[in-house]
Amino acid sequence: MASSTHPSAPCAACKFLRRKCIQGCVFSPYFPPEDPIKFTNVHKIFGASNVSKLLNEIVPHQREDAVNSLAYEAEARLKDPVYGCVGAISVLQRQVLRLQKELDATNADLIRFSSNQNMMLTIPQTSGNYPQNHPHVLPPNYSSWNNYNP
Amino acid sequence: MASSTHPSAPCAACKFLRRKCIQGCVFSPYFPPEDPIKFTNVHKIFGASNVSKLLNEIVPHQREDAVNSLAYEAEARLKDPVYGCVGAISVLQRQVLRLQKELDATNADLIRFSSNQNMMLTIPQTSGNYPQNHPHVLPPNYSSWNNYNP
Repeated sequence: MASSTHPSAPCAACKFLRRKCIQGCVFSPYFPPEDPIKFTNVHKIFGASNVSKLLNEIVPHQREDAVNSLAYEAEARLKDPVYGCVGAISVLQRQVLRLQKELDATNADLIRFSSNQNMMLTIPQTSGNYPQNHPHVLPPNYSSWNNYNP
Repeated sequence: MASSTHPSAPCAACKFLRRKCIQGCVFSPYFPPEDPIKFTNVHKIFGASNVSKLLNEIVPHQREDAVNSLAYEAEARLKDPVYGCVGAISVLQRQVLRLQKELDATNADLIRFSSNQNMMLTIPQTSGNYPQNHPHVLPPNYSSWNNYNP
């Protein structure tokens, strides 16, 4: 949630940039003075001027989300200067592929089990309850994000 | 792969910044003149000065990966100014959770099928081949990336 205004204290951005925090400051709602790291991270990676430009191009009700995603990216880039949060995307993409492969294999096994059981059921049995239609046999389509490409 | 040097043409960065592209220019290997968009995107989002600082803090053999990940982030931010590539991370995280849930459900069904079959096998059969130990019944641990937090 955007911070409340602090009439008595400049926002973290204005404090860092050593300038007067005027009413309507574009940074003020999103960079409260009690969280100076959030601004210094974003400033170090994107630059205050670029962030200001970006915020001014976004409708006010989406600015908080934008600042939070910038802060997330900045923190990831400071922790991993080579890959930043793109490293996370690669890890997640590999994880999705691995899970999809595992699910496909498990579904194939379910089909085999189900077929075997159907064969057994051709011999009349007096006990047992063997469902022949399985809700998980056909996997949903998870392929759309396997190769994220902005 | 980093571009070859272009002794007769300035790199895309120096051309954009209207400066002489000297030997040893930190941008030159990664911003060839034939791909001006790559630099303008990165400059618009991160600023040339920040990119230069970042590259100088990274060992040379990792700079190409760094530039490519910056270019990816920049393109994502230009396409989605509010969430940038963090939007991709959210989508992928949800996809991993959904796949894991689906896999858990399918594995539970496999266990149920397997138990039912074992019950049937207590009555001697003359045909059929029913494996009782299933390699996919116990899922691997995919939980480590469910909540990426740099």
